[in-house]
Amino acid sequence: MSMKLFTLNSNEPLAEEISEILDVPLGESSVVRFSDGEIQITIEESVRGDDIYLIQSTAQPVNEHIMELLIMVDALKRASAKTINVVIPYYGYARQDRKARPREPITAKLIANLLEKAGVSRVVALDLHAPQIQGFFNIPVDQLLGIPIIAQYYKEKNIEDVVVVAPDTSGLRRARRMADILDVPIAFVDRRRPEPHMEEDLNVVGNIEGKNVIIVDDMIDTAGTIDQAAAALLENGANEIYACGTHAVLSDPSVKIIEDSPIKELVVTNSVYLPEEKRIDKIVSLSVAPLFADALTRVQKEQSVSVLFD
Amino acid sequence: MSMKLFTLNSNEPLAEEISEILDVPLGESSVVRFSDGEIQITIEESVRGDDIYLIQSTAQPVNEHIMELLIMVDALKRASAKTINVVIPYYGYARQDRKARPREPITAKLIANLLEKAGVSRVVALDLHAPQIQGFFNIPVDQLLGIPIIAQYYKEKNIEDVVVVAPDTSGLRRARRMADILDVPIAFVDRRRPEPHMEEDLNVVGNIEGKNVIIVDDMIDTAGTIDQAAAALLENGANEIYACGTHAVLSDPSVKIIEDSPIKELVVTNSVYLPEEKRIDKIVSLSVAPLFADALTRVQKEQSVSVLFD
Amino acid sequence: MSMKLFTLNSNEPLAEEISEILDVPLGESSVVRFSDGEIQITIEESVRGDDIYLIQSTAQPVNEHIMELLIMVDALKRASAKTINVVIPYYGYARQDRKARPREPITAKLIANLLEKAGVSRVVALDLHAPQIQGFFNIPVDQLLGIPIIAQYYKEKNIEDVVVVAPDTSGLRRARRMADILDVPIAFVDRRRPEPHMEEDLNVVGNIEGKNVIIVDDMIDTAGTIDQAAAALLENGANEIYACGTHAVLSDPSVKIIEDSPIKELVVTNSVYLPEEKRIDKIVSLSVAPLFADALTRVQKEQSVSVLFD
Amino acid sequence: MSMKLFTLNSNEPLAEEISEILDVPLGESSVVRFSDGEIQITIEESVRGDDIYLIQSTAQPVNEHIMELLIMVDALKRASAKTINVVIPYYGYARQDRKARPREPITAKLIANLLEKAGVSRVVALDLHAPQIQGFFNIPVDQLLGIPIIAQYYKEKNIEDVVVVAPDTSGLRRARRMADILDVPIAFVDRRRPEPHMEEDLNVVGNIEGKNVIIVDDMIDTAGTIDQAAAALLENGANEIYACGTHAVLSDPSVKIIEDSPIKELVVTNSVYLPEEKRIDKIVSLSVAPLFADALTRVQKEQSVSVLFD
Amino acid sequence: MSMKLFTLNSNEPLAEEISEILDVPLGESSVVRFSDGEIQITIEESVRGDDIYLIQSTAQPVNEHIMELLIMVDALKRASAKTINVVIPYYGYARQDRKARPREPITAKLIANLLEKAGVSRVVALDLHAPQIQGFFNIPVDQLLGIPIIAQYYKEKNIEDVVVVAPDTSGLRRARRMADILDVPIAFVDRRRPEPHMEEDLNVVGNIEGKNVIIVDDMIDTAGTIDQAAAALLENGANEIYACGTHAVLSDPSVKIIEDSPIKELVVTNSVYLPEEKRIDKIVSLSVAPLFADALTRVQKEQSVSVLFD
Amino acid sequence: MSMKLFTLNSNEPLAEEISEILDVPLGESSVVRFSDGEIQITIEESVRGDDIYLIQSTAQPVNEHIMELLIMVDALKRASAKTINVVIPYYGYARQDRKARPREPITAKLIANLLEKAGVSRVVALDLHAPQIQGFFNIPVDQLLGIPIIAQYYKEKNIEDVVVVAPDTSGLRRARRMADILDVPIAFVDRRRPEPHMEEDLNVVGNIEGKNVIIVDDMIDTAGTIDQAAAALLENGANEIYACGTHAVLSDPSVKIIEDSPIKELVVTNSVYLPEEKRIDKIVSLSVAPLFADALTRVQKEQSVSVLFD
Repeated sequence: MSMKLFTLNSNEPLAEEISEILDVPLGESSVVRFSDGEIQITIEESVRGDDIYLIQSTAQPVNEHIMELLIMVDALKRASAKTINVVIPYYGYARQDRKARPREPITAKLIANLLEKAGVSRVVALDLHAPQIQGFFNIPVDQLLGIPIIAQYYKEKNIEDVVVVAPDTSGLRRARRMADILDVPIAFVDRRRPEPHMEEDLNVVGNIEGKNVIIVDDMIDTAGTIDQAAAALLENGANEIYACGTHAVLSDPSVKIIEDSPIKELVVTNSVYLPEEKRIDKIVSLSVAPLFADALTRVQKEQSVSVLFD
Repeated sequence: MSMKLFTLNSNEPLAEEISEILDVPLGESSVVRFSDGEIQITIEESVRGDDIYLIQSTAQPVNEHIMELLIMVDALKRASAKTINVVIPYYGYARQDRKARPREPITAKLIANLLEKAGVSRVVALDLHAPQIQGFFNIPVDQLLGIPIIAQYYKEKNIEDVVVVAPDTSGLRRARRMADILDVPIAFVDRRRPEPHMEEDLNVVGNIEGKNVIIVDDMIDTAGTIDQAAAALLENGANEIYACGTHAVLSDPSVKIIEDSPIKELVVTNSVYLPEEKRIDKIVSLSVAPLFADALTRVQKEQSVSVLFD
Repeated sequence: MSMKLFTLNSNEPLAEEISEILDVPLGESSVVRFSDGEIQITIEESVRGDDIYLIQSTAQPVNEHIMELLIMVDALKRASAKTINVVIPYYGYARQDRKARPREPITAKLIANLLEKAGVSRVVALDLHAPQIQGFFNIPVDQLLGIPIIAQYYKEKNIEDVVVVAPDTSGLRRARRMADILDVPIAFVDRRRPEPHMEEDLNVVGNIEGKNVIIVDDMIDTAGTIDQAAAALLENGANEIYACGTHAVLSDPSVKIIEDSPIKELVVTNSVYLPEEKRIDKIVSLSVAPLFADALTRVQKEQSVSVLFD
Repeated sequence: MSMKLFTLNSNEPLAEEISEILDVPLGESSVVRFSDGEIQITIEESVRGDDIYLIQSTAQPVNEHIMELLIMVDALKRASAKTINVVIPYYGYARQDRKARPREPITAKLIANLLEKAGVSRVVALDLHAPQIQGFFNIPVDQLLGIPIIAQYYKEKNIEDVVVVAPDTSGLRRARRMADILDVPIAFVDRRRPEPHMEEDLNVVGNIEGKNVIIVDDMIDTAGTIDQAAAALLENGANEIYACGTHAVLSDPSVKIIEDSPIKELVVTNSVYLPEEKRIDKIVSLSVAPLFADALTRVQKEQSVSVLFD
Repeated sequence: MSMKLFTLNSNEPLAEEISEILDVPLGESSVVRFSDGEIQITIEESVRGDDIYLIQSTAQPVNEHIMELLIMVDALKRASAKTINVVIPYYGYARQDRKARPREPITAKLIANLLEKAGVSRVVALDLHAPQIQGFFNIPVDQLLGIPIIAQYYKEKNIEDVVVVAPDTSGLRRARRMADILDVPIAFVDRRRPEPHMEEDLNVVGNIEGKNVIIVDDMIDTAGTIDQAAAALLENGANEIYACGTHAVLSDPSVKIIEDSPIKELVVTNSVYLPEEKRIDKIVSLSVAPLFADALTRVQKEQSVSVLFD
Repeated sequence: MSMKLFTLNSNEPLAEEISEILDVPLGESSVVRFSDGEIQITIEESVRGDDIYLIQSTAQPVNEHIMELLIMVDALKRASAKTINVVIPYYGYARQDRKARPREPITAKLIANLLEKAGVSRVVALDLHAPQIQGFFNIPVDQLLGIPIIAQYYKEKNIEDVVVVAPDTSGLRRARRMADILDVPIAFVDRRRPEPHMEEDLNVVGNIEGKNVIIVDDMIDTAGTIDQAAAALLENGANEIYACGTHAVLSDPSVKIIEDSPIKELVVTNSVYLPEEKRIDKIVSLSVAPLFADALTRVQKEQSVSVLFD
């Protein structure tokens, strides 16, 4: 294998974990940030003719991390890398995947275009906010799934009398997949804004009375969605409330909200790096490093990645 | 206005209706189909420097209609049209918008690529199966909405005590929009296959007992989805059952299924041409010609199209 | 060799013959055609990192077969095939290779553009209607020649006192090549339409009196051209009349025309699949499978293909 | 009209003639050729927002003229011209339009690609060697026809008892078109090389005995083809021999060959500039300036150009 | 004029000044920055068919400002703007215009590629670090010059006995241009690092003894270069020391360095926004708003911009 | 190694020298130049799947050599070469790397675009006139350095008391690099045109009195620059005067100028072929063949090329 692994700044611990599992060292490169904010990237070892796997979550600060990624890809291309595989555990701007209102950009597509233009050969991603984002690319995209890892955790935890709940209408497909694995029923929280600028009414659709509930989302950002859902579920007679989401965006003041919320436990993965100060007892973080390590090995050995989807 | 309107073979009546409203005649062109199946398109009038609006639903036979469209666009480009705006009331292959299983194509994206490559300047579409399909294009896409037209019909019909129902988990956002306009609650039909190759279990989530129900889908193809949903709803105590969907794909034997089903009335639009033999009493077809005529006028006059979305 | 062979629906027997000669099995893939006419393609085995050879004649129904081809190429590209070599024994729309009249498309070029956009790496073709079609592509095109195979057949048949005849002015280069191999003289049938909408006058230019004649065309579609040529040749004193053409398009009612015509025997190849009902005694079909098998081996082994042209 | 006309060095007299007919002055630009052979082009007037028509035959020295053209197009693009229409009365390298032998380039396609890449919006050409060359472009190509101008000359000349002759098998379509206008029969000269490196055998196919003959070619380069054809025709009993060709390439020593040949008169056009020393009495040059002037006016006024083809 | 002016966040005061001079209001748009760092841009008025001029210096924080620019361009493209002219008074990453060391990116080129891919039609820039950056684009780039504005200031200031000095070898062309306008001699500061990791030796080449000196640079970033140059010049007997640079990047702690340095006055322009806290007495800021206003008017009226270069 | 080496016509001796060092024969290909100036290239051996290194300096006649190069690349691409590495020891038109005046092309960028469009995979170049030219390409460019070779020559020559001089302001960076290696001071010749159309004033900046001087330029074209610089240096008291430049363009009458000038010796490399008649005693030519041979070996073996830069 002429596989080389590189990381940028957004999630070094995950990259190191993948590197250890693969027993492939992280390549030498430097990202210097000048006092005027420009970054200069230099690759410190030859990549000529190599298959490069470059790990970067485009999490906060998202614009910095995207530019780092694009600049590094330009450097790799000009340094004659054979293939440039970018590994994006968390794909930022994924929620801007359509024009919700007139004259909006479709930033998730723009990012795809920029990555291709810079010279990317392939993308390896995890739980893209919408599966259609694969179609934003003309190059191969291998999408890995985080839900089975989280489901496995719940299986082992063995909570009784569970209902899986989607916290809004858009998350039902995801909830359905979790419910399939756990073999339990589903419900959802319906949201309606009676008039513009008024608060939303939350209404639980489906039977959750006396049940233990697992709220399933794909990314936990401000935590407002799951916190409000939890309140509505309690009001409607739910018993214990759990929540999970693959991507722990956790922008401020989400950690405080979770701390104060009726949610007993929030399960996430390390697709986004969780700094020390955000690691509270209520948050359980599962590692996706073994999943990525397995996928990268298969890509490099040109074996089917699809077995990872079952 | 140097606007010229052309149609191909898939939905001439709609094109003629748009033409009449706009008071712009349909351009002269011929599509000859040779005995070996090849088609030859000739444009019979000058299009040099004109803004062309070419109307074609890529409905059944979908591959024929896509090829017609691509070939006509090539002809227009080589004949020096100024802009080539394709008006696609029904966008075929929209359901193939992501890789549902390994090694599948993303055909909805492929079609977008082919249209751009052939020379299209802009797309005007209606109720795309997934809003992300806009992002499959790098050219402007104006997406019109059919739900408000159908909602208006129900408002006038004035059915009492209504619940809007999504026939599966993926249609909840669409149902939510309809419920918003009608100001009524929603529910959905949950589907689960206990084991591969077994039949699906259908389970109604939400309160519909004693209610009149409107099932909302975006395209009615085999009609199996809404027929099964209707049965499940009845079983769960629903009162009268209505159904609607923007795109009347209605492939065989859907019309028979609808005839025999407990659905009282199916409301569709003429985005797909409905041949005489499929026009049964139960099916009400609303015209989207005024909507398209308005949109094309605005595009040609370079006025905002967004007012059509409210 | 990491060579993988796939076929689509247009000419499976040819694909199987090539597969047998190469001793490479046809890959597993499925083409499902839904009741609304949309097709769904799934590749049932890993193609990651493989050199794919995908066999599809874009013969009748041509638009279906072209769309199958494009969709399969999209699937292969997204499934990380290393190279995608499409083998097109019969290239449909080849006659639309220029603007014969104003405001016509150049569909043969459009198809080339679509194939490249979908992700094709190389084309292997046979007797393209015009050799310039190679130039419609920016990727390598290996064009194989069917004339030598047919000439070999005639050499063995050993007809005496032969003149090779082009059935119209555009086929003279092809006739010249056949005559070179057989070492015989040539003539041609001149066609002239005295006035628009009147019938064509046919006039034999060259000496064919008392000669046995082989009419050479590249594709036999409606068979009108060769049938009319045969009549004119007989009128001008020709003895026995033979005809040949690489591509047996044979759209209706060509087989009946051939049956009734003064042509003694029509030699074609299996570049287009000939269904049972079209296999009449007068039609002799030669296999191009060995030629393609040889070419694909050479491409895969990176050996020169040019030896096949001598 | 914001039309601006520019010329480069290959055929200034034709450009001036077109300029006079259009009453549009030739734009100011300079082409400096340094002592090391590099050329520097500067446009001496603003072209911002203008429709530019740039006249350049890519005749001898062809590589210099192609580079001049590409560099000027780059300058126009960077100077913000609105459209860049290149007028190429003679399209060099047109005979390299396919791979005649293995591992040859398709230079006519390469030139098309280079022109598009440099920034050309449209091509206006005359009698392209193969009509498929239009398909080498993805931009509009307006092909004008020189044959009708030459045919008109012969009509007025009123030669009696004429046969139109193609000097080789590839020119028959062209001869057929001339014969259609003159309403006379056709014949052709068949060429065959019995063995490699031996001389070709020429054989007249068709009846020309006692007839006056017009040999029709598209370009007269070395004049060997028509000179040999003339000899063969005389041997076969032809009476007077005339010849014509749109493009007077006339590379050395063609003028001497024509002078000495049995051809009575050679009719050409001024698509290629004919220097003083090549203007012998036998050569009649017809101007295509009015044809181009008409076409450019139509393009600029966005009127149909197709009337020029009748 | 259907000209519309928009600004993003990097230099609103300059945009407002240009807007006032042009008497064209700044268009309505919003840039929302979410708590996770993602930005959402919405254009609040129709831009369909308009010529858009979008003003954004890609100054600190450079990556944020570049992403803002790209996202806004995507929004404008999808909202059917006719042309998207980006006005970049300060082009960030311009110093990364070549591979100074192996395996470095060429970020200035990458940015050019990204802008073109996003949909930019034209760039209007000021004093690009290297004139070759124009060549990084395939679209028109109008480069305005700041040196004449600064030179005019010095002319009016009327300093006596001046020598223009380049602070390093790479700035000599710029210094030469300033010296041409002021009609004075030049010198430069030669820098040499005797061994790696040692300090640079500075050596003044040219005669500056007893002279008043103007150090000319294009961007003042850390101010280290001009501060060291000033020290070296004083040591070599210079009299008063002035400095200037078009782009006031002024990253920390440059303002303090300037305050403490022997430089009497630093002249810059407002191409980069200078926040209140950096406005010290020693720094004189000249406005480039009139220059840009003039240029945009000319671009919009399709008049020559080149008069602005004299 | 499946490495194949080809050369075109501009510098066969250099190609042969490289071939000998690498012990890789030059591939068989023919360039036929027809009497009308068109060239026809045929590759006489299979290149299918090979890594091709094609050597061509785009020196005088530059347009012929560029077209040769582009056509050969097209042939290689269509003949299925695996990679096409063009080795351009001298990159013509490099001085046209920016718009020096309005409405000029950027020909160095145009050439880069044309090469990429034709199908080049990588460029190996030597001392590009501006390092930014690397950024004109989106493919990898390996730039080799000639200055160290020339510096080594001077080191061995051991001239005493040397100052390195740039003959104009634009060459200072190059002079600085030479001075770094030789560990000597630098100076430059300042040029100023007091008024348009008047002669330039030359002024030596820096101390060269009584020193031996090495004028460093990158290309010696008309030799006017160095000849004038030499005169100015002598006037200012320089002792012996040497000159060097990587690229010996030497267009007429440069050799005579050098012969007559006070320059004692001119050192160049064989990046441009020096015909017999230009080989005068004063000109010393160093070979870059070993440098290129080393670089090509490293590229082919996928080893780092950067060691060649130290």
